[in-house]
Amino acid sequence: MHPITTRLAAAHDRPAIERLLREAGNFNDEECGVGLEIVDVYFSDGPTGGVNGDYPTVVAERDGVVVGYATFGRTPMTESTWHLYFIAADVRIRRAGIGRALCSAIRDVAMVRGGRRLVLETSGRELYDATRAFYDATGFVEEGRIPDYYSPGDAVVYYVWRW
Amino acid sequence: MHPITTRLAAAHDRPAIERLLREAGNFNDEECGVGLEIVDVYFSDGPTGGVNGDYPTVVAERDGVVVGYATFGRTPMTESTWHLYFIAADVRIRRAGIGRALCSAIRDVAMVRGGRRLVLETSGRELYDATRAFYDATGFVEEGRIPDYYSPGDAVVYYVWRW
Repeated sequence: MHPITTRLAAAHDRPAIERLLREAGNFNDEECGVGLEIVDVYFSDGPTGGVNGDYPTVVAERDGVVVGYATFGRTPMTESTWHLYFIAADVRIRRAGIGRALCSAIRDVAMVRGGRRLVLETSGRELYDATRAFYDATGFVEEGRIPDYYSPGDAVVYYVWRW
Repeated sequence: MHPITTRLAAAHDRPAIERLLREAGNFNDEECGVGLEIVDVYFSDGPTGGVNGDYPTVVAERDGVVVGYATFGRTPMTESTWHLYFIAADVRIRRAGIGRALCSAIRDVAMVRGGRRLVLETSGRELYDATRAFYDATGFVEEGRIPDYYSPGDAVVYYVWRW
């Protein structure tokens, strides 16, 4: 048994998070940069930030090794909507429940703070077929799609997980 | 004739922008705060920011008085999508073309930088009926809607203006 556990990210997790982003294979340079930028906002919030900051970040561990991470947060100007901004899992470990463990942890944090739904934006391209299949299996539902949003032929898909 | 002109906002416009937000009648305290927060990011970018910063902001003037403003910007991680983040016009001056002048100015800036579409998020509530009618008349098309996004019964509506 190799159970997956989750905890809030700490500054020493930054190299692992950067590696997860770079190795995921579906984030380009700008996307990796934005992913790290918001993780750094979370780290710079310090002890007063945590789950109450703008970009709380959790990591998933297996056998003491960081194998996934996610950055999320309350959606500004909404009453009970939260956003999943970035999520990445170790590509060498498939079907181990990393994504599901991260999403469960996020839901737990959001629920305690009155969150009722988690929204994410992802790509409609084939490269993201497995990613979208994961969201479908986790309970997310596609509720909108804007063609050519990321680039010609690459739509944004809005997924919502309600509980 | 009282023509509407537009120009990039300057730091001395901040009180006028705050008044426009407060008097608009459809922004709550948190929304006014976020609107001002991103305008302050634009101001703090200084001379190197302008239309190339994260939150370029334009004002509309009539007879030398600021009667409207908008904050917009290139959508991160997209190739040619721009976002309209905030727009407000003087509620005492109706049907003067303020909103249209601001949107035209934004399109001009975005087009020169390769922008092909302007996306905005607004509320589906009745309070926003006139606002959505303005977007419809300007050329925006509703391309998505997530129920209960802002609060129970208050959906987010995604509008896209393509050119």
